[in-house]
Amino acid sequence: MADVYERSLQLHKKLKGKISTELTAALDTQDDLALMYSPGVAQPCREIAENPSSVYDYTWKGNTVAVVSNGTAVLGLGDIGARAALPVMEGKCALFKRFGAVNAVPIVLDTHEPQEVIRIVKALAPTFGGINLEDIKAPECFDIEQTLKRECDIPVFHDDQHGTAIVVTAALINSLKLVGKKAEDCTVVVSGVGAAGSSIIRMLHDLGIAEIYGFDVWGVLNRARCQTYSHPLYRQLAAITNTSQEDLSFEEAMARADIFVGVSVPNKVTPDMVASMRSDPIVFAMANPDPEIDYDLAKAAGARVVGTGRSDYPNQVNNVLAFPGLFKGALSVHAIHITEEMKMAAAVSLANLVAEDELRDEYVIPSPFDPRVPDAVAREVARTAVELGLTRSE
Amino acid sequence: MADVYERSLQLHKKLKGKISTELTAALDTQDDLALMYSPGVAQPCREIAENPSSVYDYTWKGNTVAVVSNGTAVLGLGDIGARAALPVMEGKCALFKRFGAVNAVPIVLDTHEPQEVIRIVKALAPTFGGINLEDIKAPECFDIEQTLKRECDIPVFHDDQHGTAIVVTAALINSLKLVGKKAEDCTVVVSGVGAAGSSIIRMLHDLGIAEIYGFDVWGVLNRARCQTYSHPLYRQLAAITNTSQEDLSFEEAMARADIFVGVSVPNKVTPDMVASMRSDPIVFAMANPDPEIDYDLAKAAGARVVGTGRSDYPNQVNNVLAFPGLFKGALSVHAIHITEEMKMAAAVSLANLVAEDELRDEYVIPSPFDPRVPDAVAREVARTAVELGLTRSE
Repeated sequence: MADVYERSLQLHKKLKGKISTELTAALDTQDDLALMYSPGVAQPCREIAENPSSVYDYTWKGNTVAVVSNGTAVLGLGDIGARAALPVMEGKCALFKRFGAVNAVPIVLDTHEPQEVIRIVKALAPTFGGINLEDIKAPECFDIEQTLKRECDIPVFHDDQHGTAIVVTAALINSLKLVGKKAEDCTVVVSGVGAAGSSIIRMLHDLGIAEIYGFDVWGVLNRARCQTYSHPLYRQLAAITNTSQEDLSFEEAMARADIFVGVSVPNKVTPDMVASMRSDPIVFAMANPDPEIDYDLAKAAGARVVGTGRSDYPNQVNNVLAFPGLFKGALSVHAIHITEEMKMAAAVSLANLVAEDELRDEYVIPSPFDPRVPDAVAREVARTAVELGLTRSE
Repeated sequence: MADVYERSLQLHKKLKGKISTELTAALDTQDDLALMYSPGVAQPCREIAENPSSVYDYTWKGNTVAVVSNGTAVLGLGDIGARAALPVMEGKCALFKRFGAVNAVPIVLDTHEPQEVIRIVKALAPTFGGINLEDIKAPECFDIEQTLKRECDIPVFHDDQHGTAIVVTAALINSLKLVGKKAEDCTVVVSGVGAAGSSIIRMLHDLGIAEIYGFDVWGVLNRARCQTYSHPLYRQLAAITNTSQEDLSFEEAMARADIFVGVSVPNKVTPDMVASMRSDPIVFAMANPDPEIDYDLAKAAGARVVGTGRSDYPNQVNNVLAFPGLFKGALSVHAIHITEEMKMAAAVSLANLVAEDELRDEYVIPSPFDPRVPDAVAREVARTAVELGLTRSE
């Protein structure tokens, strides 16, 4: 692991930027200059002034997203600030282009103030076709995303919330096929009710999971407890989890669970807990870089399907499976929002890439390098946006 | 001319973006992913959190500028708004890359409020190595630029003010050689005391021009008149122009002039006015797309050197000669400001590209496609920044 850090540092030093801006056409003659800049450029300007939506016809807006962070929750590093967040945002932009063929610009903002992030992103929005929020701490990230979704006319998506949720939902759909259980018969324990955990709970609820227990440092989520936590999000989550509103312990919940989903801290789950789960335990332990329980330990304790965030074990739950295709699809039809239905369409399309006869305990989710992934996700997301009438009308 | 507009529109429609973002390295394997993104990317993040200035070592910041506009003074089109300004900003970004090898990102801001532009650009600044302000209307542009120069730790440069000033100063240096006059013996009439005119007046003053008369719609600039105009800039300009503080007419001033510099409106200057100028009149008529006096008319009326903004006549005064090399040079040494001295260094380096034995009435300034231009400008700008100690200390 030390090696990957040192090699990454050297690569970053060599590249001095993992992305660049490039011209899309030759600019070698006076005529090129007259067409791409002055005086010719006045014409698309006039057209857009006349008909604002033609900005999608004459500029890069329609295929370009901003990857915006204020550096308050970067990877597992915490609030390291705007500058130190830039390598992650650049990396994300590289992934957007490589996997989704979408232009992406890193934007790091030197502010801790959620209202300021909202003001700035709203003001920037005319430049871009979509906004990918990244590494903004909870609970501020919820209000930032909700407000921007409401007030911008382009898709706004906080990948830390929804990216992992989409991919783990896909993995779960296939895992349930494998073990022959139905969502409505299953109990899930979700460890970590932050940005990712809250979106996972919603998606699992939408998938039809009968019982979900959400745990965080304060214990299990229930209506009584969430009085204490001021953010309204917790009340919304309590309403769709823990149907009997019990105050049970993590161990007790695990003993009732068919499925464990972790987006929390390393070593949260013991082999005994896995052993106590219902038949054919499904374990997605996605804490980074060290999972809630190691892949091998979980398997040895009886887990049937295990997924982690790591690329060196089977079933890597990697959000690069979702966001490039998701934005590609949303942009392709000028979607104005990315909704729960579009997220679920992305999850189902991902799950369907693993054919029934290929499906096995070690292969419930495609690889990030499966070349079919981005277009499969994009197609279903676009189709769903069009069906729901969520596309920009001219 | 109609043709260039129509062809430009078609080109824009075909390209849907004159720039794109691209990866600078392959991302084809799990190992690439681990180095360019998670988990490896955590290491440059940690390094930058520890030592903020190492952001220049590990990210694209050091070779990337933002081209920022709020669309309030776009070309000759006026306040057409953020969206309609995007084609110009994209074009500018293409020029930055093509001529300066500098990455550039268009940012159009949906706000008319100068304080809001300032807040946003300050918050964005960590992402970029420099800020090129563009097409922001006067007098707001002066305060925006001044405040940002003071409050940002990266170069901030409003090209509409300084770009043309640098290039016309270069052209003038060579024109004076050609006609055998010294700056300190010359009188200049500047038509248009807006963004560009004000910077031109300062640079010509720094060049040593003895007498400058600045004209705008309200007549000649003098101390009495500029009481009426609230912006302090006009008082500063009045202090270095019109030494006798006369209230003379445009025609009267032209009859005293060795040099005319126009950044105002078409057909402001008549052949009679050119004929009334002192010996070997030098005329830079840069209103766009139609100059203050046509090239041929000015020559027929006795002008010795004529320059315009047009590429179809000799001596095109095109700010693409300045900004790419200027930023390239400033970024290469981590300059913290772009100062008057650096602007003058750029002008002198441009002038020096025309060798004395090549110099003639029709060739006082290099072509925008002269491949020596960006590096010559960059070298002198960088040298000047280092000499003046205007570079970032680690």
